[in-house]
Amino acid sequence: TFVLDKDKAEEAFAAKKIILGRETMTFNLLPLKYSWAYDLYRTMKANHWEPEDIPMQKDVEQWRSSSELSEVDRWIIMMGLGYFSAAEGIVGDNIIHVVRELVTAPELKLVLGRHAHEENIHADSLLYMISSLGVNPHECEAMFEQIDTIRKKNEFVTKTSLGLRRDLDLHQIENKQLFAKNLFVFGQCMEGTQFYGLFGMILSLYRQNKFPGIGQMFRYTLRDESNHIELCRNLLMDLVDENPEVWTKEFKQEMVDLMTEAVDLEKEFIRDCLPVNALGLSSEEFLQYIDYIADRRLEGVGLDPLNPGIQNPFPWLAEMMDIQKEQNFFEGRVTEYQKSSSLSAVDDDEL
Amino acid sequence: TFVLDKDKAEEAFAAKKIILGRETMTFNLLPLKYSWAYDLYRTMKANHWEPEDIPMQKDVEQWRSSSELSEVDRWIIMMGLGYFSAAEGIVGDNIIHVVRELVTAPELKLVLGRHAHEENIHADSLLYMISSLGVNPHECEAMFEQIDTIRKKNEFVTKTSLGLRRDLDLHQIENKQLFAKNLFVFGQCMEGTQFYGLFGMILSLYRQNKFPGIGQMFRYTLRDESNHIELCRNLLMDLVDENPEVWTKEFKQEMVDLMTEAVDLEKEFIRDCLPVNALGLSSEEFLQYIDYIADRRLEGVGLDPLNPGIQNPFPWLAEMMDIQKEQNFFEGRVTEYQKSSSLSAVDDDEL
Ligand SMILES: [Ca+2]
Ligand SMILES: [Ca+2]
Repeated sequence: TFVLDKDKAEEAFAAKKIILGRETMTFNLLPLKYSWAYDLYRTMKANHWEPEDIPMQKDVEQWRSSSELSEVDRWIIMMGLGYFSAAEGIVGDNIIHVVRELVTAPELKLVLGRHAHEENIHADSLLYMISSLGVNPHECEAMFEQIDTIRKKNEFVTKTSLGLRRDLDLHQIENKQLFAKNLFVFGQCMEGTQFYGLFGMILSLYRQNKFPGIGQMFRYTLRDESNHIELCRNLLMDLVDENPEVWTKEFKQEMVDLMTEAVDLEKEFIRDCLPVNALGLSSEEFLQYIDYIADRRLEGVGLDPLNPGIQNPFPWLAEMMDIQKEQNFFEGRVTEYQKSSSLSAVDDDEL
Repeated sequence: TFVLDKDKAEEAFAAKKIILGRETMTFNLLPLKYSWAYDLYRTMKANHWEPEDIPMQKDVEQWRSSSELSEVDRWIIMMGLGYFSAAEGIVGDNIIHVVRELVTAPELKLVLGRHAHEENIHADSLLYMISSLGVNPHECEAMFEQIDTIRKKNEFVTKTSLGLRRDLDLHQIENKQLFAKNLFVFGQCMEGTQFYGLFGMILSLYRQNKFPGIGQMFRYTLRDESNHIELCRNLLMDLVDENPEVWTKEFKQEMVDLMTEAVDLEKEFIRDCLPVNALGLSSEEFLQYIDYIADRRLEGVGLDPLNPGIQNPFPWLAEMMDIQKEQNFFEGRVTEYQKSSSLSAVDDDEL
């Protein structure tokens, strides 16, 4: 129950905008205009987790054993550690230095701060995995820098962020479109689609009882990603709502083309780096899974799917990503942060 | 136990700098160079708290009662809500858009992200207090904007931040000094000194059993501030260490003069707005307390104190700020995040 001065509240409310709203360095959240942003902030913090909460003993035992793992299993883990150490950093930088810098309403800055904070937690969790397993971090890094299909994935996203880190006159429609494109590329193409090849592989290992600690952390990470995707989706939708001139037919086509490019790059990466068959999965189905995810992202922002009617070939993966169905999964402290409100808000059913 | 490729590790280590180090958007924390930064990150997260953990029933009862509070008590709370809602926002913006943008080592970005996150939590806690009491937020805001002595405090800090939000060639010594000054003004003058007038008032109320929930949240906030002050202090010290040309006699004098100005502004604010005597405190001692704090900040960064040998007139305030002496203070979930490692690291004894 907030008590508000009605006239002033209406004035303050009207001054709140996604971009070009009242510029203030003070943090007057009230009156809340983008209540989805504050709700999402609460959902995200209810999902709070810290890497040390998750035991890594079993993972370390498996990693050191000569019989429990194949070289393929180790390779996938190395790829996961290397890729996400870099990718989460790129996302965090973009959220902080591009998106939070350009939005003007305090509740948007609040939830973007939480997003950036979760990228920190993910980076810290990767450090925890690397140090627990005793992996040489330079090996991860080198693999990462030398693999062409990963480098291309990164270039795809960084080209829509670097230019936006400096003064940008958002009164111009081209610049509004650059910002909209950034939100789409990072939220829907990168976090929303290009993360899912490796997520799928690591959860496949987890399903085979390999790397239970790492698998668990990736499940928490995936739950966080759902919220990041939703945050970028809401921001984009409200930006378009307030600036309808952005959302032209040509621009929508450009977004669909970008998703097509993102999917192609992810498939190249999978063919090049992810030994899908060795985990007992069909590569054809694995690629179809990426198409399926990409279409969910396109539909999420009101764009036409690339493959209408496509089915999810891995319903077990959807189950595994859907933490709410498996309450016992949570143990100890994490459970306490897991409140019922947050469970209903994150819906991974369609994945 | 980290396994590192020795040559590459040495190379990566050497490339890590406070400023002008290897620029990377990826988040390769290893090898850790600024280990104080990672340790502080862990301390900070061990202190994690959320506003909803703290009951506000008693505060609300008192606020609504016509007999339990004086108008002075209410005024102090309104000042606290208004001042910190704005001030924490200014600090968070500076940490994100100035400091994190300029530093280059990933572990520094990690701990600065945690700092920014705690400003978010503080903003959220103020929202929680405002809405629990049913205070009109526009009243807080208006008070805040119309009070000259507060406006001056803000101008004092924002003038050292706004110019730094854009491209800054840090190869030039003047610009390095601008950055050093920013760290000093925000960490030592603002969070380190100018926050303490209101902190002292609110904890005085708390000592009189008024506003137990708000008092508790401010104690958590104070504990966080200790770490923010320490973070800015370490950053400044390491920046100077790596760029000794910054730390000239003239520059050191400028820092001392800035602290003198900060103290004068805080004293003006106290005389103007804080009814110290009405809480049973001596105004002379209260102003001496600010002098005492300011000297601790100057000494912390190796500068001469303004009032050598000055004593802390309020030892009870030091006790109250020192959470580690009062274990029972923590209840429920917060206790679990309070680990022994963090308790020893935050030392408020001297306050
Ligand atoms: Ca993410
Ligand atoms: Ca602070």
